[in-house]
This record gives sequence, structure tokens and C-alpha cells, in this order.
Amino acid sequence: MGDESAGRRRRSGGREGNARRVSGFHLEQMPWRIPKNPDRPTEPVDPEGVLAIHKGAMRILSEIGIEFLNDEALAIFRQAGCRVADQNVRMGEDFVMEMVRRAPASFTITPRNPERQVVIGDGHMVFVNVSSPPNSWDLVRGKRPGDFETFRDFMKLTQVFNCIHIAGGYPVEPIDIHPSVRHLDCLFEKLTLTDKVCHAYSLGRERVEDVMEMVRIAGGLSHAEFEASPRMYTNINSVSPLKHDFPMIDGALRLARRGQPVVVTPFTLAGAMAPVTMAGAVALSIAEGLAAVALLQYVAPGCPVAIGTFTSNVDMRTGAPAFGTPEYMRATQITGQLARFYGLPLRSSGVCTANVPDGQAMWETSNSLWAAVQSGTNMVYHAAGWLEGGLIASPEKFVMDCEVLQMIQRYMEPETFATDPDAIAFDAVREVGAGGHYFGCAHTQARYQTAFYNPIASDWRNYEAWAQDGAVESPERAHRIARGLIDGFEAPPMDPAIREELAAFVARRKEEGGAPTDF
Amino acid sequence: MGDESAGRRRRSGGREGNARRVSGFHLEQMPWRIPKNPDRPTEPVDPEGVLAIHKGAMRILSEIGIEFLNDEALAIFRQAGCRVADQNVRMGEDFVMEMVRRAPASFTITPRNPERQVVIGDGHMVFVNVSSPPNSWDLVRGKRPGDFETFRDFMKLTQVFNCIHIAGGYPVEPIDIHPSVRHLDCLFEKLTLTDKVCHAYSLGRERVEDVMEMVRIAGGLSHAEFEASPRMYTNINSVSPLKHDFPMIDGALRLARRGQPVVVTPFTLAGAMAPVTMAGAVALSIAEGLAAVALLQYVAPGCPVAIGTFTSNVDMRTGAPAFGTPEYMRATQITGQLARFYGLPLRSSGVCTANVPDGQAMWETSNSLWAAVQSGTNMVYHAAGWLEGGLIASPEKFVMDCEVLQMIQRYMEPETFATDPDAIAFDAVREVGAGGHYFGCAHTQARYQTAFYNPIASDWRNYEAWAQDGAVESPERAHRIARGLIDGFEAPPMDPAIREELAAFVARRKEEGGAPTDF
Repeated sequence: MGDESAGRRRRSGGREGNARRVSGFHLEQMPWRIPKNPDRPTEPVDPEGVLAIHKGAMRILSEIGIEFLNDEALAIFRQAGCRVADQNVRMGEDFVMEMVRRAPASFTITPRNPERQVVIGDGHMVFVNVSSPPNSWDLVRGKRPGDFETFRDFMKLTQVFNCIHIAGGYPVEPIDIHPSVRHLDCLFEKLTLTDKVCHAYSLGRERVEDVMEMVRIAGGLSHAEFEASPRMYTNINSVSPLKHDFPMIDGALRLARRGQPVVVTPFTLAGAMAPVTMAGAVALSIAEGLAAVALLQYVAPGCPVAIGTFTSNVDMRTGAPAFGTPEYMRATQITGQLARFYGLPLRSSGVCTANVPDGQAMWETSNSLWAAVQSGTNMVYHAAGWLEGGLIASPEKFVMDCEVLQMIQRYMEPETFATDPDAIAFDAVREVGAGGHYFGCAHTQARYQTAFYNPIASDWRNYEAWAQDGAVESPERAHRIARGLIDGFEAPPMDPAIREELAAFVARRKEEGGAPTDF
Repeated sequence: MGDESAGRRRRSGGREGNARRVSGFHLEQMPWRIPKNPDRPTEPVDPEGVLAIHKGAMRILSEIGIEFLNDEALAIFRQAGCRVADQNVRMGEDFVMEMVRRAPASFTITPRNPERQVVIGDGHMVFVNVSSPPNSWDLVRGKRPGDFETFRDFMKLTQVFNCIHIAGGYPVEPIDIHPSVRHLDCLFEKLTLTDKVCHAYSLGRERVEDVMEMVRIAGGLSHAEFEASPRMYTNINSVSPLKHDFPMIDGALRLARRGQPVVVTPFTLAGAMAPVTMAGAVALSIAEGLAAVALLQYVAPGCPVAIGTFTSNVDMRTGAPAFGTPEYMRATQITGQLARFYGLPLRSSGVCTANVPDGQAMWETSNSLWAAVQSGTNMVYHAAGWLEGGLIASPEKFVMDCEVLQMIQRYMEPETFATDPDAIAFDAVREVGAGGHYFGCAHTQARYQTAFYNPIASDWRNYEAWAQDGAVESPERAHRIARGLIDGFEAPPMDPAIREELAAFVARRKEEGGAPTDF
């Protein structure tokens, strides 16, 4: 795929932007920014409906209870006065709401490059790369298990695209690295190939502690500085219905105690792990999420948390999960209403069921990304690169999704809906008159370079020009862009002493055997 | 493309729905319904901004004026007390608003099959097929000029899909039929192959009168019955900036005087035929639209009208129009705010710039269709089948778009956001308990057949099952579905006497030479 000429030709031509020239490959993209969502959220449910779901969640917590497969958590709940029977924990509304009120409505996370700080909450919206697929798929090699080189490729894309704010979980699981040391190699790459906020999997004490230490070293921080404000985060999932397992809760407690944010995301698939009705699935999700939030706020009052939604439905013919459906959209919007009711930041996702980056992939992903906008989501997981319900990460899909993310960012810019006299442009209308043309008028000339969104992977030429240039469809265009960006990648700067310290830490921990793999 | 086995296999399996079996091809689709949009519209502009755009439009109308290339219209405006100089008409806010207030907030249109009646306005949303591309494109034959057989194919798709409510303009221009009689042949096909609401192009007296007469005959109506309520409609475009041409206004006047609805849709492309700023382009569009509405309401007080938005932006590198952009979305939402300010129904569109039904086509179309939802659009033109900025109609895209339209219809169904105790499902959560499964519980079993959206063109199987079955991507799946539906098409019933009368009318008008083609 060496010929980038079509892509280069399309992207030439004197437009402003945050031009990035790497080894002859030129990507014009929007500058880094943390978009703020100006839209009033879509609220499918009325206030009584919000209350009904809240009360449903509270009844689940007080009358049915949540299982915590973690002795430390059980002891804490017992101490807090909750009813604990074996691993079942029941908690009253007063306790839950008192704990929830301790959580901040928004917080920042500051990575090793402070210019890449993100805000979670307060109307902002940040985008996280695809996280955790076991496989990758690309146009040339098809579907194959994740490996370390592919992991690195995705880290490069994560770093290059300004519309990706956070380097979340592993874009693919690198199965060619032994699980005991995988987190060490992956985090070393993540922290050196990117300078964005990163994430720790809550998969056991050693992994979590190693990642926190590596983020601290990469930031050049003392232990006290690390704990003084959020520098990274974890995301935990419950085992729906009604269970939290040991390692997730263990990791969450470790981060919360050191002031690092925890996102709690139940995976409540309506009709499978949750009620077949969307409000029921949301109520279950809220109950599971708030149970963990309550635990963390009891242990570390005021620690930064967010609730995640991953409520979708199954295909009732097969039982397989479906994403980007109308039901998914409504569940996301409704969870947004609940998040605002509790004053917590919201995480949702950019998801699809499709296996390849075709039309289906993009209508499903568009559904989920617009639902994220409409729900007031603050943190969009899997915002770029996801396929096959999360079983595949694809570089082509990554680039195509970044186009949509950039359009969402542009959509949120106040210039697109300004109504000052300059925007109403009465004088220009008078100047051009009837039957005239606006290209040449002063009002247009002063604005045309930045007036409109400038695409990266779209081809806006007419059919004939497009056909004469090879009739290249969007996955192939995206493939060329991804290839060009990966081949021409230059890592962000890092103090050599810090890099050395990081490498030494990895070497020492590998010598010690890394993390146990027997859980 | 004779092998429909993949499609058939996917669509078998005992789901409820509005099953349609035609010649062995089975399409499970949603039943006919007129969806009602329950969402509060997205309002990017505050009330002062709405007023600023309104005042901008009023200043354009009173200080700059609109050119009407139609002597009858000029005489009417003169009679109404407007300032007319040559073809320029200036009108004051009081007059415009008095005329606008005469228009109904909503109206029905009843085609020959009264069960296909549509409501335009009052929170409803109806979908119109792709209209007016000169060319078609399909997977087998590529791009080629429109012809009569292809016109007929699209009419069949328009009829078969329940989510298409209106047979709008010609899906392709059939250039193998002489322009003088094209409207006669096309309308005969439209009125016999479909039983849905149809449309007349305002392209000269004879065409408009012929179509009205044919719709009257097809409905078995007396002249008085035809005029008693809307039975069809026309859509007119201004020649932006600031002009209305002769035939469009002529046709609009003819329909309005007989009580038939007129949609007025300026094509204000920001940076070309309109100011480069979106609020300016919308103000110009509103001015042009209301000028025609005022004319029609003066002549036929209370006649049904709607305002259309077709405000998008150009690609500033090439001057070519771009569709489905962030700017397009905001312009659509803002025009929705203005439509509600004036109490008029709104028409927008399902549009894209892409040349083929790939990922780009679907993210652009999704953008425009969700903008239609967010703007409170009542009538979505080009809702299925549009490509290349309106230069291509594609059967594959038609089917893919119908999937998105069905999802929008499902999204609007109250069951997706119900919060009654049954939906909260507390008892089911208690019954299933921790770690259980919801497939088998009574709450699921009672609902699973209708709980979730059931797709038509999506493939929700996992990668391996999909790959083993031929790795068929969405355009190919859509192609098979379109082919199966066209090949197995059965026309809706029509009284043979009416069909004969219609054929006789066509024969007579052809003998008379049809319509003049010299304008």
C-alpha cells in the first residue's frame, strides 16, 4: 500500500489546520481541543420516569442486593452499616445517596504532557480509542489475533489523531507477550508512544500498582504529586446481573485511595444479563454502578468517579449482542438523565455490530456516537476503531471514526450556530443581490478558509473525478491514511532520564516475574 | 444476482413483523405507520438568535426584495400593496407575518389508498423516496443515465417499503421518454405501481394540470372532492439568491388555488448561493421561502404550505456542494427553530456527498437523518436512495437507508423509553438474581418477539459465521434485497375502470402532444 498519492493530492491545497507532515504523508486535521457540548440533552424520559428508574435501582440495592466477590469490600460495607449476608450486600437509599453526593461533578486528568489534560464532566466530551478487542482486522490481512506490533500501530494512531484524547485500554490484546509481563511492555509503549491520559486494567494488585508507578515515573512525579490530582484512571465492569468480582473492585479501591479516577461500567445486555425492557436494564445498570461508587466514596470521600453505560440489546434470534440499535440509543440517553440526576460524569461508547468497516458499521457507529452527544456523555469509549461488537479493532475503522469525531467536534463549535450581525450577513446579501454569487464577496473571502469542516477521509469530488482517480472507497482511503500515519510516526518527546527510569522499572519487574497469572 | 439464499436465510426464523412474501423473497419489515417524534428538538440558537435570523429575513424582504420572474405573481403583490419595481418585490414584516399566520400548522394528504394518508406537521415525521437524480448507480451496472425501467424499479421499492410514506419526484429522470410526455408516463406508473401520496413537478402549466387530473382520476374523485382536501403536493425551489422563477411559482399558484399543498425549499448553499455563515444562509433561505408562502396565502388563504431547508455548505477547495456536514446539521436544526417560530411544517432531507454506498455515504446520511430528527422535521425528502449530492439514485443505498429509517421509527416508539413498573422489571431482577440469565424468565419470554428492533439489511452474525456465508458486505446484501423485491413486485390493487380512465387520459394527452418543451 505504498502509493499515498491519491490521499496526498486530496489533502493538498492551502487549507489551514493543524498540518502534520511525516515522511511525506500529510494529514490535515483539527487541532487538539476538549469539545464542550452546547446542546440540551435529549431526554426521552420525564422527571417521574427518572425517579421511577432511580427508585427501581434503590429497591434493587436495598431489597435484592449486590454480590461483592471481594472480602475487603464486604468488610467495608459491614463497617458502613450495610446488611451483608455472605457476599450479598444490601444498602439503603440514604446511604447510597449520601455516598453519591460526595463524588465531584467533574474532574481533570493530567498525563505526562500537561497540554493533554482532559476534563471529565462539566459539559465536556472526550474521546477514547478502541479498547480491549482480542483481534484486529485490516484490509490487507483480514482478521487475526492481536499482537504487539499491531498494539503499537494503534498506539501511534491514538497519538497522532488530535480528536482522540485518551489512550484507554489495549486496542488489541497482544497475545505474543506473556500475560505476566504484558502490562509492563504495553504500558511502556503507551507511555512512550503517546503523551495522552492512560488507563490501567484492574486485573490484580501487581498490574494496578505497576501501572500507577509507571505513570508516576513517566510524569516525573513524586508519590505525593501523583496522589495530589488525577493522572490516570481505571474502568471496571460489574459481572451483570448483580455481581462485582474480586480484581475489578481491588483495582478500583487501589486507585481511589490514591486519588485516581474510577469509571464503573456495568455491561447490562437487555434480554441476556438484564431485563428485556430498556428501563429495567438501565435500572439494573445504575444499581450495579452506584454500589461500586458508594464503596469508593465511603473509602475515599470525594474521589473522582464516573458512571458508564453499556446497556444494549441482544439479537433475539441468536442471543448475540447488537450495538448501535435504537434501543441502545434510548438506553444511553436515559442513563444520561440518571447521571445528571446523581451529578456524576457519564461514560458511553462508540459501538457497532458490523464485522467490517462498511455502511452498516458506519450507521451503527453514527447511531451510538450521536446518542453519546444527545445523552451529554462526557467520555466516549471505543470512539475510534471498534468492529464486531468489540471483538475486532481496525485501523481503517479508526480513521473513518475519527472523521465522524472531528465532525462532532466541529458541530459543537459556536461558529456553526452564531447569530451575531456578522453571521446574519445582511450586508453581504445586499452586496451580492439577486442571482449573484457569494464566492467573491468580501464576507466570504474573509472567512472561507475556516468557515466549514474540512474532511480527512471523505472524498467530496464528483463521481467522474473520483472514478478516474481509481474509484477508491472509504475503507481503502482510510487504509492508506492509517498506513501513512503509522509509517511516518514520530513519538512525542520524553526526557531521556525518565525513559531510562521507566525502562529500568520494567526490566526490574520482569526480573521479579511480573504479575501472577493464576487468577 | 439470482441467488437470494443468504438474504433469505438471514431473514427466516419465526420473528413477528409485517412479513411480505413475494416470489420466494421474504422481507420482514416494520408495519406502515406515521411516526411521531417524541424528542424535544435540538435548539442550537437561543430565542434572541431566532429573532435575529427572523429580523434578518424580514430586512431582506423589506429592504432588498425578492425577484419574481412571474408576471401574475408581480400583479398579485402589487394588488397586495407590496413595493414592486420591475421584477423586484419588497414586502414589510406586517404583511409577511399576516400571511404566514394564515397557513395551517399541519395538514393531511390523502392518496388513492386512504390507508396511506400522511400527516404533515403536528410532530409527525414522514419519509419521501429519493427524487430527481439524473443518474442511477447499482453494484452491477455502475453509473448510467436514468431510464424508464429504472424509474419503475425505484417506484417498486418506494411502494414495497412501509417506511417510505410518499412517492416524491422522479427517483431518476427517465431520459428515454420524450420530455413532452414524460410526466404522463411517469405519473401513470407512479399512480399504478404505488398507492402512496405523490407529487407534481412545477414545470409548466400543462404538466401541473395533467398531474392534478391524473391524481383526481386515480382517486376516483370528482373535481369538488379533489379540491376539498389535499390529495398530492408540489415542491418548489427558489433560484438562490433572491429569485423565484416562472414555472415554479406558476405551478405553486395552480396547486394552492385547488387546495393542494406546496413545499417551498430554497437551495441556499453557504459560500456559493448564500452567505458563508450558516445563520446568514438560513436567513436568506427563510426570506426566499416566506416570500412564496406570503404569495400563496394571499391568493388562497389557509392553503397548506411547508417550508423546506436545503441549506448546506460548499467544499471551499472546489466549490462543490457538500452534504451531511456539521454545518448542514446546524442549519437544519436552526431552520427547525424558525419553522416553529412561524408555525409552519418543516421539510428537510436525507443527503450525502459520497458517490457509492460505502461508509462515507452512511455517516453523511446518518448525520442528515439524525439532524432531521433533532430539528423536528415533518417531511424528509430523499430519505432513501440518494448518492453523489443528488446526482445518483441507487437501489442499494435505498435499502440501506430504509434500515436507518426503520431504526428511526423504532427509536420513536414509546416502548423504547417506557418507565412503567413492567418496564422497570423489579420482579424479574429479583427472580433472576445474581449471576443468572434473563433469556428464560417470564418477563423476557412475554416480550422477546417485539422487544427489539429487527433489522432488514444488517448482518448481526459474528465474523466467522458471516465470513463462512460469503463475507457479504452491506451494499451486496442490499443489492440482493432490492433485486428480490423488484423481481417479485406485485402492484397494489386498482379498480380496472379507473386504470382504464387513467390510460385513456394519458393516450389523449399524448395525442395532443403532451406538454411544450421550449421553456
